Amino acid sequence: LTTDFGLHDTYVGTMKGVILGLNPQASIVDLTHEVPPQNLREAAFAVYTAYRYFTKETVHVVVVDPGVGSTRRAVVLLTPRGIFVGPDNGVFSLVIGEEARLTGTPISEDGGLIKLPPIMTAIDLQNKEYWLPAISTTFHGRDVFAPVAAQLSMGLDPHRLGETIDSLNTFRARRPHVNNRGVMVGAIIHTDRFGNMVTNITKQHLADFGDEDVIITVGDRQIKGLSTAYVGVEPGQVLALIGGSDHLEIAARNGSAQRLLGLSAGDKIFVLPAG
Amino acid sequence: LTTDFGLHDTYVGTMKGVILGLNPQASIVDLTHEVPPQNLREAAFAVYTAYRYFTKETVHVVVVDPGVGSTRRAVVLLTPRGIFVGPDNGVFSLVIGEEARLTGTPISEDGGLIKLPPIMTAIDLQNKEYWLPAISTTFHGRDVFAPVAAQLSMGLDPHRLGETIDSLNTFRARRPHVNNRGVMVGAIIHTDRFGNMVTNITKQHLADFGDEDVIITVGDRQIKGLSTAYVGVEPGQVLALIGGSDHLEIAARNGSAQRLLGLSAGDKIFVLPAG
Amino acid sequence: LTTDFGLHDTYVGTMKGVILGLNPQASIVDLTHEVPPQNLREAAFAVYTAYRYFTKETVHVVVVDPGVGSTRRAVVLLTPRGIFVGPDNGVFSLVIGEEARLTGTPISEDGGLIKLPPIMTAIDLQNKEYWLPAISTTFHGRDVFAPVAAQLSMGLDPHRLGETIDSLNTFRARRPHVNNRGVMVGAIIHTDRFGNMVTNITKQHLADFGDEDVIITVGDRQIKGLSTAYVGVEPGQVLALIGGSDHLEIAARNGSAQRLLGLSAGDKIFVLPAG
Repeated sequence: LTTDFGLHDTYVGTMKGVILGLNPQASIVDLTHEVPPQNLREAAFAVYTAYRYFTKETVHVVVVDPGVGSTRRAVVLLTPRGIFVGPDNGVFSLVIGEEARLTGTPISEDGGLIKLPPIMTAIDLQNKEYWLPAISTTFHGRDVFAPVAAQLSMGLDPHRLGETIDSLNTFRARRPHVNNRGVMVGAIIHTDRFGNMVTNITKQHLADFGDEDVIITVGDRQIKGLSTAYVGVEPGQVLALIGGSDHLEIAARNGSAQRLLGLSAGDKIFVLPAG
Repeated sequence: LTTDFGLHDTYVGTMKGVILGLNPQASIVDLTHEVPPQNLREAAFAVYTAYRYFTKETVHVVVVDPGVGSTRRAVVLLTPRGIFVGPDNGVFSLVIGEEARLTGTPISEDGGLIKLPPIMTAIDLQNKEYWLPAISTTFHGRDVFAPVAAQLSMGLDPHRLGETIDSLNTFRARRPHVNNRGVMVGAIIHTDRFGNMVTNITKQHLADFGDEDVIITVGDRQIKGLSTAYVGVEPGQVLALIGGSDHLEIAARNGSAQRLLGLSAGDKIFVLPAG
Repeated sequence: LTTDFGLHDTYVGTMKGVILGLNPQASIVDLTHEVPPQNLREAAFAVYTAYRYFTKETVHVVVVDPGVGSTRRAVVLLTPRGIFVGPDNGVFSLVIGEEARLTGTPISEDGGLIKLPPIMTAIDLQNKEYWLPAISTTFHGRDVFAPVAAQLSMGLDPHRLGETIDSLNTFRARRPHVNNRGVMVGAIIHTDRFGNMVTNITKQHLADFGDEDVIITVGDRQIKGLSTAYVGVEPGQVLALIGGSDHLEIAARNGSAQRLLGLSAGDKIFVLPAG
């Protein structure tokens, strides 16, 4: 489960009640419920970093859903490495991009309604037979997504849930680019509890760029080269390394890089060859 | 589980250790552990909004227990739609009221010690055989309620836990009333993570009031009519709608109504017929 | 699971994905993920207070690991009352001390590398066969500890994970002492959500001191005698009692002793015989 519900209210617990009522054997894992309210990009990033560590039978339910109760579609997305349930508002953008990339069927990254590559299928949830009997206009997590996910986890054929569709809404991916001076320009996309700032530059981007011997400029700091671990510098000092999701990350040993540099999601990062 | 223990300490995890030690097959769901310390009304509201989405075999453990270690009773409450375990301090008030209402056996709402209607039974937990061997004076969640709940989840006859009692402590319910000018006066009873403010006015109250074509006054705002979804107004604007618990709710699209209006639990809300 | 990962990121959920991928039957309990970043003492205290309430087959995974990616060892610790997995950085200090104390084989409390008593065994995790195929330098919780724990929970012989070692790193325990004026001097070691301040003085220490009829000085307050429950004083008043972990605790009825006294972990507490 990935939501923006937080843990102060009973929304998450109620969804679990619905799921376990239908499938008492379900193992339910919380990815995070602390997605900032209505923040689709953070929701997409949360699922993207974690889904590959779950079995391909896992049903990932994402409920960050500012359009709940409107005409936005509710969908199931079937991929080679997981089943995804949620609103069709872009929360699956990064998963779609990653699965497409890994199977060599790259897709448009301009956002908007994109056609799914053949390895993926989506279904428009319309069959109310699989929902709760009474549907609120504010809590489809409980009334639609939870019962659908529970039944998928019990082996329900997803095609019984509604009609197959071949396109889903995505948002424009923030990808790094190399400018005309040969500098790779990326951006911070997530800051974690430790103040580590994850960027949209991956290990693969750096390899394609040609060199790991780089100078990184972020905020008012220059960082020379990549460290291999947090202990690679003195306590309190800022470093760059490839983090657990294979993304370039700016961190501070035993401290918060975010606080030290005063940056946040959307701020730029520049990578130059050291030569 | 519903508690005011928070998630920084190991109190909740320890209760789960006790439960799983007795019933390794137990499925444990957290409703919330962020009830404000010692806040019986918020605890009662949390359980009330969620319990009907769980099976009737579910054992709901509520530990918001400022009187722990005193002579306050520890009880099990058996209802048609769930089993409840916790201190006899009012945390089950709203569940008792709702079950009584649904079965047409209304009870006094003046609070204090009330007689349970025949559809419900309570048991005074006295039989120490079902508790942990050593009982602290500060943590009955771990020493009394967790082992009792684990054994109930395995089918233990609740009457073995102690003597049947026919009354429980409740607090006076905050119900809306219609004043002599024909205005329905209600109150905010809970604010969620999104800043949505849930009131004590239900869909049923509005139906009894005769009209959904209403003007709502809350803080310094007038809201005309009910929306059917958050997207019913422009971003940032305040709206009123029937929320996921069938209560009238004041919200702001993609924003926090609480912050916009500066209100909190206990503040009043007025509903007038639009005519 | 006990970590300093917090619940905003997907680190904890990802570890659970890895565990359930290997052992779909695993019951996973969160002790806390809100250990302050890199705070080994708080991590050690969290596990110490909770582990005895779990069965002895339980695998306790502790990931508070500032040295991740360095040469610090990753270990399994086998004790009579639980299996522990984590970095060899002191997070198991209090468990080792407690198990040694209970079995009458006291160990040095000076910290540093200490020799385990015969009732405990440790294994240096070196056999990469039981890890994930790709090992990051920043997230051994996911890549090493989660898969090892999952396999231990399925009955894997721990000796297959690496070589047996007879010493582990510990930190110097903060124990109370009696000074030359006959005053027992202890310290606050943890403050909980309610503002209750747990000290390093146990029920046993007080019994050895000879008398429960004591005067306690903490901050600018004098507390006469121990209460048996939070309700032992007037609302808002400060009291001392033996808390749920059998440690002396300073609390305030329906209030926060921490806020009232302005103290925090490390601050001293003095106990005198009332006579």
